[in-house]
Amino acid sequence: MDSSTHATPPRKPVNQVRYELLTLGDELLLGLTANGHLTFIGQQLGRRGVQLDRNVTITDEAGAIARQFRESWARADVVITTGGLGPTCDDRTRDVLAEVLGQKLVFDPAIEQAMLDRFAAFGRKMTPNNLKQAYRFERAEVIPNANGTAPGLWVEQDGRVLCMLPGPPNELQPMFVNQILPRLAQLGLLLDREAYVQIRTAGIGESGLETKLQPIFDQHGDALSIAFCAHQGMVDCRLSSPSGKYSLSQIDEVARDCGRLLGEDLTCYGHDSLAKVASDLLRAQEKRLAVAETATGGLLANAFTELGGACKFFAGGVVCCSNDARMQLLDIPECLLLQHGAVSAECAVAMATGAAETLGADYAIAVTGFGGETTGPGGNPIGTIYIALHAPHGVWSKKLSYPGPRPTIKTRAVNAALDWLRRELLRAASGAVTPIRRTGAMQ
Amino acid sequence: MDSSTHATPPRKPVNQVRYELLTLGDELLLGLTANGHLTFIGQQLGRRGVQLDRNVTITDEAGAIARQFRESWARADVVITTGGLGPTCDDRTRDVLAEVLGQKLVFDPAIEQAMLDRFAAFGRKMTPNNLKQAYRFERAEVIPNANGTAPGLWVEQDGRVLCMLPGPPNELQPMFVNQILPRLAQLGLLLDREAYVQIRTAGIGESGLETKLQPIFDQHGDALSIAFCAHQGMVDCRLSSPSGKYSLSQIDEVARDCGRLLGEDLTCYGHDSLAKVASDLLRAQEKRLAVAETATGGLLANAFTELGGACKFFAGGVVCCSNDARMQLLDIPECLLLQHGAVSAECAVAMATGAAETLGADYAIAVTGFGGETTGPGGNPIGTIYIALHAPHGVWSKKLSYPGPRPTIKTRAVNAALDWLRRELLRAASGAVTPIRRTGAMQ
Repeated sequence: MDSSTHATPPRKPVNQVRYELLTLGDELLLGLTANGHLTFIGQQLGRRGVQLDRNVTITDEAGAIARQFRESWARADVVITTGGLGPTCDDRTRDVLAEVLGQKLVFDPAIEQAMLDRFAAFGRKMTPNNLKQAYRFERAEVIPNANGTAPGLWVEQDGRVLCMLPGPPNELQPMFVNQILPRLAQLGLLLDREAYVQIRTAGIGESGLETKLQPIFDQHGDALSIAFCAHQGMVDCRLSSPSGKYSLSQIDEVARDCGRLLGEDLTCYGHDSLAKVASDLLRAQEKRLAVAETATGGLLANAFTELGGACKFFAGGVVCCSNDARMQLLDIPECLLLQHGAVSAECAVAMATGAAETLGADYAIAVTGFGGETTGPGGNPIGTIYIALHAPHGVWSKKLSYPGPRPTIKTRAVNAALDWLRRELLRAASGAVTPIRRTGAMQ
Repeated sequence: MDSSTHATPPRKPVNQVRYELLTLGDELLLGLTANGHLTFIGQQLGRRGVQLDRNVTITDEAGAIARQFRESWARADVVITTGGLGPTCDDRTRDVLAEVLGQKLVFDPAIEQAMLDRFAAFGRKMTPNNLKQAYRFERAEVIPNANGTAPGLWVEQDGRVLCMLPGPPNELQPMFVNQILPRLAQLGLLLDREAYVQIRTAGIGESGLETKLQPIFDQHGDALSIAFCAHQGMVDCRLSSPSGKYSLSQIDEVARDCGRLLGEDLTCYGHDSLAKVASDLLRAQEKRLAVAETATGGLLANAFTELGGACKFFAGGVVCCSNDARMQLLDIPECLLLQHGAVSAECAVAMATGAAETLGADYAIAVTGFGGETTGPGGNPIGTIYIALHAPHGVWSKKLSYPGPRPTIKTRAVNAALDWLRRELLRAASGAVTPIRRTGAMQ
């Protein structure tokens, strides 16, 4: 596109660029689909030093789209829309926005060809209503869609930018990261690198973390901006320098200082999940893991199987809801269950060791407890959780207690278990522990 | 509250009442927290015949809140806000909205007492910043919060309604259902009953469902409005009568006709999950279930353990990522794995039967396949899934193939497995099947 024919956005500091996200679709307003686009795009922009001014979700109705778009276009420097680009009659975004911006829609044979190729690759015939998607604004660039038929559109007009993206997340997300972010960076509308360095921690509270890091922060005064974000047993600390006094590599240096001070409380720099961090340690040490779970009901296993190539380090997991299952799958003696109950330190330890032995794993974590609505037997209140960790150098348990509804308890318990595993793997890597060796006589 | 002192909202048909939802919080705009309030409130209102006009998510900054609230208050009949009612300095909703509406904030000793009681019950001391939450609009009703300190507020002014709700979902959700919905219904701003009857189906496509039901719909003409919503192997069909020609019980009768025509394709009337429907059948037949999974990595077990009292019918589950785990936990012969591979009909059947036998369950479902980024061995493409069902009357497998990213494949596979189990349980309940009896000689 020849950008000289229409005004490009004005240059200003990226944190003053006004972004609006318009998410279109009745299914969002009726709660049939979660608004994951806000989460994804908000996160991606945040990493590049930009916060959305506003996200507006509206209906598919043409009048409502036109009214809202006019208002947002008047306020913002960049408007991003999601949805309403598909082939059916309720996909009105393209038509309505073209009209508001006074642009003609023109048929683009290259888009048609890309669609025909895509249908052919899947051995399907293209229905005529798909051709609607081959029309683009006369003054726009096409953003190719590697995972679907509807391409995105990039429009520079009135000193503003409009990005129109299709609704399906697996289509939108790679388009946004690979095509939209670089274009926005090129126009100086966001940073061309991460805006902050994130220190991710676990097992330490927000105020504890702040207290621990304060001596470092004090050395840097107002050159450094610090933001904390706590989520279910993890606390992220983001370091940035909005004033520009520090370069990214200087911020990075401060972050490394913080990391050294934090020791094991640091899980990673960046955004990796606890399961990812723990699995990297397992792979590096060529160890295998097994899990056994009651209260977390499959989520602990899922945290690992979500990761690519989990078979390399994840031996397997057992979800047991009954004592029979515990005895059968994990070889837990009935007398132990009868004496201590299933929600006990003793049972957690037996589950962890049972999982490691049965599945031939080096490490195992077990979670047992009450995540439900009713108080457990033996007076154990809801939210009582026992975690056990089996490692080549020993087996231990701890008792935890979480308030809150079942999903919160589950997530907290999963994170606590993953964090413990991570810490033991760190200790093992540092040579601080010695594996227990079985003597011939004991075997 | 004496409603004569300030105008109550005008009476009009509920589908013309304009609702706006303002979700407040930088954490939403930065994608740190998903906007679950839109999903929840959108769903709740939808069930009562109302669709949100708009959802606007904005920052915690006072100027932005005031500007957006003024605009929404001018457009809408009902404005619902979430967040910003807590004790900290970035909780500004109460102050800002009071100023915009010209209301004084008054200290309410009853709110203070409720907070003191809550702190005492948890054995904690209340910090002074909490007192901020004891201030309410002078002309407002307090919406008690059973699960937190910040109460909600209900304001009728300018012929409009304002509901202010706290941000944590476990606080907001029961307040909305138990206190806000009945108040809105009393003012005629939404229906005092469900607006539609939902027929939930599985294992049949959207167009197939429409074709099957069309003869019934044809009999009712424009008295009936029909909407379809497909999600990951399930299709919901909602019947309503926006014209009011049919009463809810008449719609219900039509829905029952549809249900009879659909037979096993009907999973339920309403919103129950497939796991809930299957587990109700298991409980009614006093049968127990086990699961064994690879590709779904723990999500199949989680679908059941999410339900209250899962121990009554759920024996347990096994997540296996390696052949060793399959052999160890499920007693699968190595020769079978070597000959057919782990992603095969033969392995799926052996996993299901192994899970049933090992865990002493009557039914078992097994899922094995490739959900990852790479093509599996033996030329099996990504998204190839084998499901097996073990029942007292036999064991079978089927091959499925799903496109899409890993989370989609997992959800589709879980739903397909749950649906198959549900259908076999229905057949068993109807007496259409005979359990296989082992003869003495065979044992």
